[in-house]
Amino acid sequence: MHALNIIIIIITVGLPARGKSYIVKKLRRYLNWLQYETRVFNVGNLRRVNEASQQHDQSANFFDPDNTDMKRIRDDLAIQVLDQMIDWLKQGGRVGVHDATNSTVERRKLLIDRLRKEPEIKVLILESVCTDKMVLERNFRLKLFGPDYKDRDPAEALLDFKSRVDNYERAYESVGDWEEEQDIQFCKLINVGKKVIAHNISGYLSGQCIFYLMNFNLAERQIFITRHGESMDNVTGRIGGDAPLSEKGRKYARALERFVSQQRASFAYDLASRKVKEEDDWRSYGLEPLDGKKESETIDTRTTQEKIDAKAKELSSGQFTVWTSMLKRSMATAANFDPDVYDIKHIRFLNEINSGMREGMSYEEIQRFYPEEFHTRQSNKLYYRYPGMGGESYIDVIHRLQSMIIELERMTQSCLIVTHRVVMRIILGYMLDWSQKEMPHMLVPIHTVYELRPKPYGTELKKWQYIESVDSFVEF
Amino acid sequence: MHALNIIIIIITVGLPARGKSYIVKKLRRYLNWLQYETRVFNVGNLRRVNEASQQHDQSANFFDPDNTDMKRIRDDLAIQVLDQMIDWLKQGGRVGVHDATNSTVERRKLLIDRLRKEPEIKVLILESVCTDKMVLERNFRLKLFGPDYKDRDPAEALLDFKSRVDNYERAYESVGDWEEEQDIQFCKLINVGKKVIAHNISGYLSGQCIFYLMNFNLAERQIFITRHGESMDNVTGRIGGDAPLSEKGRKYARALERFVSQQRASFAYDLASRKVKEEDDWRSYGLEPLDGKKESETIDTRTTQEKIDAKAKELSSGQFTVWTSMLKRSMATAANFDPDVYDIKHIRFLNEINSGMREGMSYEEIQRFYPEEFHTRQSNKLYYRYPGMGGESYIDVIHRLQSMIIELERMTQSCLIVTHRVVMRIILGYMLDWSQKEMPHMLVPIHTVYELRPKPYGTELKKWQYIESVDSFVEF
Repeated sequence: MHALNIIIIIITVGLPARGKSYIVKKLRRYLNWLQYETRVFNVGNLRRVNEASQQHDQSANFFDPDNTDMKRIRDDLAIQVLDQMIDWLKQGGRVGVHDATNSTVERRKLLIDRLRKEPEIKVLILESVCTDKMVLERNFRLKLFGPDYKDRDPAEALLDFKSRVDNYERAYESVGDWEEEQDIQFCKLINVGKKVIAHNISGYLSGQCIFYLMNFNLAERQIFITRHGESMDNVTGRIGGDAPLSEKGRKYARALERFVSQQRASFAYDLASRKVKEEDDWRSYGLEPLDGKKESETIDTRTTQEKIDAKAKELSSGQFTVWTSMLKRSMATAANFDPDVYDIKHIRFLNEINSGMREGMSYEEIQRFYPEEFHTRQSNKLYYRYPGMGGESYIDVIHRLQSMIIELERMTQSCLIVTHRVVMRIILGYMLDWSQKEMPHMLVPIHTVYELRPKPYGTELKKWQYIESVDSFVEF
Repeated sequence: MHALNIIIIIITVGLPARGKSYIVKKLRRYLNWLQYETRVFNVGNLRRVNEASQQHDQSANFFDPDNTDMKRIRDDLAIQVLDQMIDWLKQGGRVGVHDATNSTVERRKLLIDRLRKEPEIKVLILESVCTDKMVLERNFRLKLFGPDYKDRDPAEALLDFKSRVDNYERAYESVGDWEEEQDIQFCKLINVGKKVIAHNISGYLSGQCIFYLMNFNLAERQIFITRHGESMDNVTGRIGGDAPLSEKGRKYARALERFVSQQRASFAYDLASRKVKEEDDWRSYGLEPLDGKKESETIDTRTTQEKIDAKAKELSSGQFTVWTSMLKRSMATAANFDPDVYDIKHIRFLNEINSGMREGMSYEEIQRFYPEEFHTRQSNKLYYRYPGMGGESYIDVIHRLQSMIIELERMTQSCLIVTHRVVMRIILGYMLDWSQKEMPHMLVPIHTVYELRPKPYGTELKKWQYIESVDSFVEF
């Protein structure tokens, strides 16, 4: 099913503060995880080191659309970057992203005309548009804490930044009629996926990109990932199988339930404090809070603490899913979660890699009896497939986890995933952007919990280890 | 990952001849196959048997938007159908489709207001728009052969039908601003999936529907499906395993290659004849052919036969994919296909159902040693999961074939699928709309080829049986 010989160039379109670089980073991470080597080529970075443009002042004047000399230099840069991308794709890259505002039809025509000489490269235009005033306002306000506005009055600085953006917008030509006439494959993401317009999508890979981009959201949440508690096979060092938990494993399972429920409560409290304080902050700057609710007619007489407590209670009552594989050791690890409080799901896709004819053996035995096989696997774990019916490689497991990753991106609520070594490496590989080289070799011991929080700039990670002697978790 | 307790109402919007019923039928088939019980409720059907509306003339006058009495009757009907749907969903249905033109905001508001009383039901508005003149023209021309225009001059009849449609269009209000303001989940399909606009899609099931609808196409093609040739396990009657082909099986593999390549050539010839003749027909009616090419300046001096031959040659040189599972008997069955001519892919998702601890046994043995298990499986094959690690149910296999079905819909070229009994039942179940009751029990013997051709009205099927004594295939 996987597109083995497709190469593709994604041309981004969008004004600053529209979430473009967020989207591009996420997409690059997903495609690399699917083993389509993907690289982002940023035009601005080249501009900053480019000789021709360094001879000129790079302030607003450089970007003035009526300044034809400067326009020529900018167009040359865009084409130079495109040429670099084409070279890289011809040397084995799979997806190149031309990361620039590319905000006029004339510019996009220039790029498309150059690409007509490369019929083996498919093109996808990806535009990010933001019309949601609340999101824009939030993005803008973040700029107030940046270098340009540091010591200025926030309300005044905000006005100034908005008028800057207005200037950008005047020359902007959204993707649309021209691209439709030319039958170009494009996707417009409006308000970070709230509305999506897809045109002429025909390739497997483009379809996957768009399905992915349609399914993510910006909700703040916790994603906990752990391996099952110690199993009888862990004790004897055998791989595969379907052994029950050991006594230690059962102890871990009990501690895990306590730990997750406590982390969940403290997350709700932190988020509530942050939201209540942010509102108070904006008010102190003379700006309305962002959540759309105006100060009510009757004055809110609650203290800040009372507001936080109420909000935290509301947040912590939300849904929370516990996913496990369908193997005994994984289901038993989640057995202490109350089904009235947690939404518990056992799914086959989270099962451990199938080690085919080597199920039930220890690594020592494989090394002793099948030294060549052992060596081949060590030198290329990603592609090595265990012999025998059903035997899988890391790549096989990635493919079966694809729909799980989409589901993780789509969900707005927090969750816990209880799974196995290889599956955990692969899910963490996606979340933490591990390279294909390192991913199959990362240490992910049992009785360890990874707590992930997706953020606009990447994924925040906390690692916790269960210490049996004190029967609790410590950060490490 | 699967949405276990979501129920959803899809409200269709669209003028006649816009492919609406085609899309709805396809979507119903896909959702039923995924085991979400789906039913289409057609408002027109109720109107035709409804007392209040039978008292009135049901010609164009009935549909006149300015005729308020008639409008009230039509609105009542729409709400009656909606109430039926809600009842059905409350009795266990999962997806109900409100199939009507629903062409004004006022009408849609009426339906949405009624649904506000049912907060557990999600709503998805699905609009089909056609602006592609060629597609519309083709849909219109099909009407010329219908009852209304049977004995009339085609060119004149076409003009008449077009002016009818113009009347419809005047009152039409496309899905858009109102739905966005109300934050309603909707999807607009423009020109049968060429362009897709999705708004506020948040549920798992809605996301799956839209991904599916984004990925289908109308290209004429052949899909061949067969089980592997006879294996050594077939000879001894064992299930599962990874046995090689028997001598008979190898003979079948050779015959299969000859058969497919011959069917492929004759399909190209048929399609070429049909296209060339259709063009000639339109010319004889005094209408331009539809393919967009005008008669060239220099007159085409080729005979009809020469034109057909040239077109057939062009069509038969297109890509053709051969998919097999990763089991020996399936790969060996495709071993005679020349990789220079066919695009050959081995994929794990096409492997046979995993029979867990019962791999390698015969049905007689299972019945003898595990009579209760045997009985449980016979009485509910769909949900029965084989015991032991990796053991699967039909439902499990459906889930792993989901991406294969999407790929089959996305591909424009012809293909052959070589797989196994359960997988073949499930793929045919989708293509041929078999009910969940019959699907697990359908006979799909080895050495049989199903040839499917997706058509606007359903799937055309030919069944072929390999007769060893004459070493060739006969239709049955």
